[in-house]
Amino acid sequence: MTTTNQTSKLRMALIGGGGAGFIGKVHATAATLDREADLVAGAFSSNPERSKAAASEFGVPADRAYGTYQELLERESQLPADQRVHFVSIATPNFTHCEIACAAMEAGFHVVCDKPMTTNLDDAAKMVATAEQTGRVFALTHNYSGYPMMRQVRDMVANRELGDIIAVRATYVQGWMHGMEPGADQARGAWKSDPLKNGRAGSLGDVGTHAFHLASFATGLQPESLLSHMQSYSKHHELDDYGHAMIRFNNGATGMVTWSQMTHGRLNDLAIEIDGTKAAVTWRQEEPNQLFVRSLGQPTKVYERNPGANYMTATASAACRIPGGHPEAFFEAFANVYRNAFADMRKVNAGETLDRAASIYPNVYDGQKGVRFMTRCLESADNASSWKSW
Amino acid sequence: MTTTNQTSKLRMALIGGGGAGFIGKVHATAATLDREADLVAGAFSSNPERSKAAASEFGVPADRAYGTYQELLERESQLPADQRVHFVSIATPNFTHCEIACAAMEAGFHVVCDKPMTTNLDDAAKMVATAEQTGRVFALTHNYSGYPMMRQVRDMVANRELGDIIAVRATYVQGWMHGMEPGADQARGAWKSDPLKNGRAGSLGDVGTHAFHLASFATGLQPESLLSHMQSYSKHHELDDYGHAMIRFNNGATGMVTWSQMTHGRLNDLAIEIDGTKAAVTWRQEEPNQLFVRSLGQPTKVYERNPGANYMTATASAACRIPGGHPEAFFEAFANVYRNAFADMRKVNAGETLDRAASIYPNVYDGQKGVRFMTRCLESADNASSWKSW
Amino acid sequence: MTTTNQTSKLRMALIGGGGAGFIGKVHATAATLDREADLVAGAFSSNPERSKAAASEFGVPADRAYGTYQELLERESQLPADQRVHFVSIATPNFTHCEIACAAMEAGFHVVCDKPMTTNLDDAAKMVATAEQTGRVFALTHNYSGYPMMRQVRDMVANRELGDIIAVRATYVQGWMHGMEPGADQARGAWKSDPLKNGRAGSLGDVGTHAFHLASFATGLQPESLLSHMQSYSKHHELDDYGHAMIRFNNGATGMVTWSQMTHGRLNDLAIEIDGTKAAVTWRQEEPNQLFVRSLGQPTKVYERNPGANYMTATASAACRIPGGHPEAFFEAFANVYRNAFADMRKVNAGETLDRAASIYPNVYDGQKGVRFMTRCLESADNASSWKSW
Amino acid sequence: MTTTNQTSKLRMALIGGGGAGFIGKVHATAATLDREADLVAGAFSSNPERSKAAASEFGVPADRAYGTYQELLERESQLPADQRVHFVSIATPNFTHCEIACAAMEAGFHVVCDKPMTTNLDDAAKMVATAEQTGRVFALTHNYSGYPMMRQVRDMVANRELGDIIAVRATYVQGWMHGMEPGADQARGAWKSDPLKNGRAGSLGDVGTHAFHLASFATGLQPESLLSHMQSYSKHHELDDYGHAMIRFNNGATGMVTWSQMTHGRLNDLAIEIDGTKAAVTWRQEEPNQLFVRSLGQPTKVYERNPGANYMTATASAACRIPGGHPEAFFEAFANVYRNAFADMRKVNAGETLDRAASIYPNVYDGQKGVRFMTRCLESADNASSWKSW
Repeated sequence: MTTTNQTSKLRMALIGGGGAGFIGKVHATAATLDREADLVAGAFSSNPERSKAAASEFGVPADRAYGTYQELLERESQLPADQRVHFVSIATPNFTHCEIACAAMEAGFHVVCDKPMTTNLDDAAKMVATAEQTGRVFALTHNYSGYPMMRQVRDMVANRELGDIIAVRATYVQGWMHGMEPGADQARGAWKSDPLKNGRAGSLGDVGTHAFHLASFATGLQPESLLSHMQSYSKHHELDDYGHAMIRFNNGATGMVTWSQMTHGRLNDLAIEIDGTKAAVTWRQEEPNQLFVRSLGQPTKVYERNPGANYMTATASAACRIPGGHPEAFFEAFANVYRNAFADMRKVNAGETLDRAASIYPNVYDGQKGVRFMTRCLESADNASSWKSW
Repeated sequence: MTTTNQTSKLRMALIGGGGAGFIGKVHATAATLDREADLVAGAFSSNPERSKAAASEFGVPADRAYGTYQELLERESQLPADQRVHFVSIATPNFTHCEIACAAMEAGFHVVCDKPMTTNLDDAAKMVATAEQTGRVFALTHNYSGYPMMRQVRDMVANRELGDIIAVRATYVQGWMHGMEPGADQARGAWKSDPLKNGRAGSLGDVGTHAFHLASFATGLQPESLLSHMQSYSKHHELDDYGHAMIRFNNGATGMVTWSQMTHGRLNDLAIEIDGTKAAVTWRQEEPNQLFVRSLGQPTKVYERNPGANYMTATASAACRIPGGHPEAFFEAFANVYRNAFADMRKVNAGETLDRAASIYPNVYDGQKGVRFMTRCLESADNASSWKSW
Repeated sequence: MTTTNQTSKLRMALIGGGGAGFIGKVHATAATLDREADLVAGAFSSNPERSKAAASEFGVPADRAYGTYQELLERESQLPADQRVHFVSIATPNFTHCEIACAAMEAGFHVVCDKPMTTNLDDAAKMVATAEQTGRVFALTHNYSGYPMMRQVRDMVANRELGDIIAVRATYVQGWMHGMEPGADQARGAWKSDPLKNGRAGSLGDVGTHAFHLASFATGLQPESLLSHMQSYSKHHELDDYGHAMIRFNNGATGMVTWSQMTHGRLNDLAIEIDGTKAAVTWRQEEPNQLFVRSLGQPTKVYERNPGANYMTATASAACRIPGGHPEAFFEAFANVYRNAFADMRKVNAGETLDRAASIYPNVYDGQKGVRFMTRCLESADNASSWKSW
Repeated sequence: MTTTNQTSKLRMALIGGGGAGFIGKVHATAATLDREADLVAGAFSSNPERSKAAASEFGVPADRAYGTYQELLERESQLPADQRVHFVSIATPNFTHCEIACAAMEAGFHVVCDKPMTTNLDDAAKMVATAEQTGRVFALTHNYSGYPMMRQVRDMVANRELGDIIAVRATYVQGWMHGMEPGADQARGAWKSDPLKNGRAGSLGDVGTHAFHLASFATGLQPESLLSHMQSYSKHHELDDYGHAMIRFNNGATGMVTWSQMTHGRLNDLAIEIDGTKAAVTWRQEEPNQLFVRSLGQPTKVYERNPGANYMTATASAACRIPGGHPEAFFEAFANVYRNAFADMRKVNAGETLDRAASIYPNVYDGQKGVRFMTRCLESADNASSWKSW
């Protein structure tokens, strides 16, 4: 458990998040959970009326509720340094991420961006270039890697406690798409069914990329090639809502990523299993405080999230706020991405150089990797599930 | 999922919480989680140096870090209404709660107080009287009743979905006391072993009262009599660290409350089982998003915390912030106590009358009940475990 | 995993078991599971017609289906040694156990008897005396102690892997009594509601004694005194169907035995938790292949039933028939009681002396202990739950 | 719960099973569990000395312990009808199944055969033809389909309680291969690493076929095409020990079969998930008494194996021997395959015609399907994981 330097709070603007979805509120809560930041501005909706209305809900003063992200960037840039926001959080449809994030970084703001980073590799390259050129912090909310026990896994792999990695299976299954009706007005994520706004990757982009990121985050392995088969079973859209990707990693390990938003009654079941030559681990997002570690002939060990316990790595302990048995969950994991990005923002703000590659939070390169994953999956699925080089 | 009126934030002062324990930080995080309040002042320690140091950690400006609670109350009272705190949160040793809470209420502040409310029935009566006389909000952080699925249970009992209640078993087991050494300087809760500071109820007060409160909260039943047997197994203190209380409730139901801080490897295992004539339920704090509902001949039903699902009651849904499968946990439950107390504070601040009996958050009468529970348990244990009238 | 000497099979007679209940068939299957015995005779019902009918179901030839246990004992005694049964298994109502078992032992047969052993301490003493005088094997089917992982627990306690035992909680909850109607013809265990046939201990005798036996079996502790509170919540009978017994063991440990047949939807939920000064364990009959071992600051260890694994004791491994992950369950545990009793029967048959105290299967002294437990619970409940010396 | 006609016991011979493995004893115990059969003969080993030694362990008289299966078939054929065996159970290496089973059927014996049925499609066709020509019962011990809750799933699918099936994921992971050393003398399944004895399918044949069978059994779907990727990670052999097969079923559903014997610490973790348009189910062999049924917006339902409960289908109830909460496991499921095959044997013995297609136990066509599955997987893996028509 760590305490943070509270000497000065960072100021946040939220772009998007004013609609029926919940992710905007998650960003607001996660960013302020450790009292390291205040939400002080926003362009909550592309509809200016709705943006103003949302501002009051978010506790943002009316004069800093902007009608567009452009207005936000422009007006905030003109504020004195001790008032203007330090960073923007982007919770808009996928196809807008690149444009907004690049503009924000170019205007000097750090960026926290929802996933997937964008819908195509050209955009992804542009975002990488802009981040590098501007030196701004760019964090992608693959929030599930913020869970302490996933950081524990990453450390255990790095410390070779699992030996060589031979296989990874990451599965992300939900069932809410069974509740959608073709043509009906969708409260949640209507744009997610529109290829123009969402990109061509349906559930692949919505949940598959999370699963892929978790596998990458935990193992550090690079795909060499992958193949994919995906289907669209729901009647209300054309995009994939069920699929598998098989991966050959550069060390010879086999990966399997499974995604579904058509598994009845499943809520948000992201799970990962990693097989090594010395031990294997399993973790499940819906019971995030426990990590199961198995080794031949030994009892299964349940590592409880428990900061300071001997078996916990320093990084995993640092991602905890309270003792074991006092469960931490989704908000706290999400807040860990913010907390770590904040540390980098403070460094950059203090004139230090950013060591982007060392970030434990998902960065712009991780985002690019996710876009590559989606792209290769679609290419394989379009070509009789043949292997595609990474 | 509800959104809160963010028109004006409440201002909070924290009394205590500056030591090695974690509960002060929990209060700060929980109170501000929904961005309904800001922590702006504190008397974090009885040691003024330490209080100042803690202030910076908590993000509280040095000029509002006070050396004593008396100073805090006095100085804050003198501030203009639009600056002074609205409420104080008390996270100090048990024996100080009465004195501080009464002084705060008399000074016009609302109070959020850690549990147990106090160490004896005289104090408890005084706190009830002071709350009634001053009309201030008094909330006790029996935080586990803030979990959505416990509120679901309470509603299900009230709606008679379980039929008549015939038995309740509440168990709270921890094991951390095995890590304490007699005489060693204790980082965590040293005062908890000192009868003068803690009161005579050891683990009974620390965890047993939580379990008892949960049983009361869920069932609404009143004890008619109880008997208790408790022991002190740890070498480092004289107070009970293991015990049972058997309860005869006013409707004839049987209650069993079990507490332990000597169960090796258990972290914070609070669990409750309620048997009714139509159905039975079980819930466990360490996996708080699931409620198990059983009825003869039917499949066991797992009610997932899932706001808006048909099976969820309105109160339970209102206690959620995010959809099912995105687990909420300790902080969010703790924050629910604050959120509900805030609604009452806003009412009182707006001149409305407080309907104390209707509060879903634990109030001063619940606190008094907890003190009565401890007192009767000790009396029974002192008298060969004989039944004691409530 | 052990293999048994199959040189000669033992011959079994079943007394009772011909009614609607399932326990007779369990005895038949468990006794023959290892192909160490054949069921060759029976007095399946006090109704001779029904006894004959049951014989065919059990695969017993008509000429060895007897109308009464007296006839069975007499006629079998007259058969040549290489045909007559070696032992009788008693699956009749509780109040008949003493009479049948004593007669059988006096006629030279070994006895396997259902629990509780009998309904009162006088009978129990008579059974002990008869067993001692006749030198016959007497095994009581507290079958839950036949589970490999419970034998593992017993060994771990004996090896002091848990340190000193400070507390034991054994709970046995079922809910089937909610399905019974007052006055209706009961398929299952009608006599269990009749104090004359069942004895005064209702659920206490039916399930409470199992829980108590498991606690005794695992810890080897002797009660010094106990108190009890029990209730009758069901409308269809007068006997207890819910209760608790609090125990002070001779080493100062605290015991809690909970029994219920009124917990809606619970099937056969026998569970035990043992707290020691070095570690604590939990086990649950409905998931019998796993044992949870906890110790402060260490991961929870799940000991899987896995014969030959390093962590398994020799006795626990010997109680397994197949490798870990191939679950063994109720029949196999029940069969372990038979298997161990068979070893003693073979010894006695071969002229060796019986070391009754060393038996891992529940013996006549364990049965007597169970009757004492019921008796003391009833005495305490009759006397305002006061402590009763053991 | 059903009772079986016990009028005459069937006589069994076991071929194989005399080595270090456990599967021979499983056959013996499962076949006799319901006291419907007696094990009276055997050719336990290709080594005649070892065969005789094993006979005594199995309780088989020395004069019916044969040195070869040929001798067994010949000598048993010559015995009078009321002495000779009715069926043989084959527990020998895969490559011998075809030869033995065909010879046995041609000699007039029914056959129960271990899986996979054989190593190639030519053999499989021969076994199908021989079964059809001889009219003998042929049962394959894909024993996991004998679990009551898997039969429940099959019925629920057939009754369209899940709606249309859109996806199936079957996973079978073990870890014991980590305990094998290259070149060392292997106690367990040494022949399983020898392509000449085992066939080319390594873990694919050992566990993958079980997973595939379960998916087929439960859904009744036929593959249209499949692709596969498999690897050999263990140092001690050339055969696959890890792999995935992706299946396109004839109704458009997606299947995924995962097999591993290199997942550290996993024992025998066979699990299946089936997604339908109305509900989804999950089941896991290591906790076989529970079936999880999920549907959007409803509580997860845990169907406990509980014969006679309203939610249980007749077939599932008939596969139970004892009430819910009294767990049944591996032996009982295995015994269900025997029990159902026995009913067919009795019919054939009584001159009735065999309705092979209606068998709930895995039959010769199921075996052929399993061989086709292995063959297609190997073909795909040999051809860059391209889709292969079924």
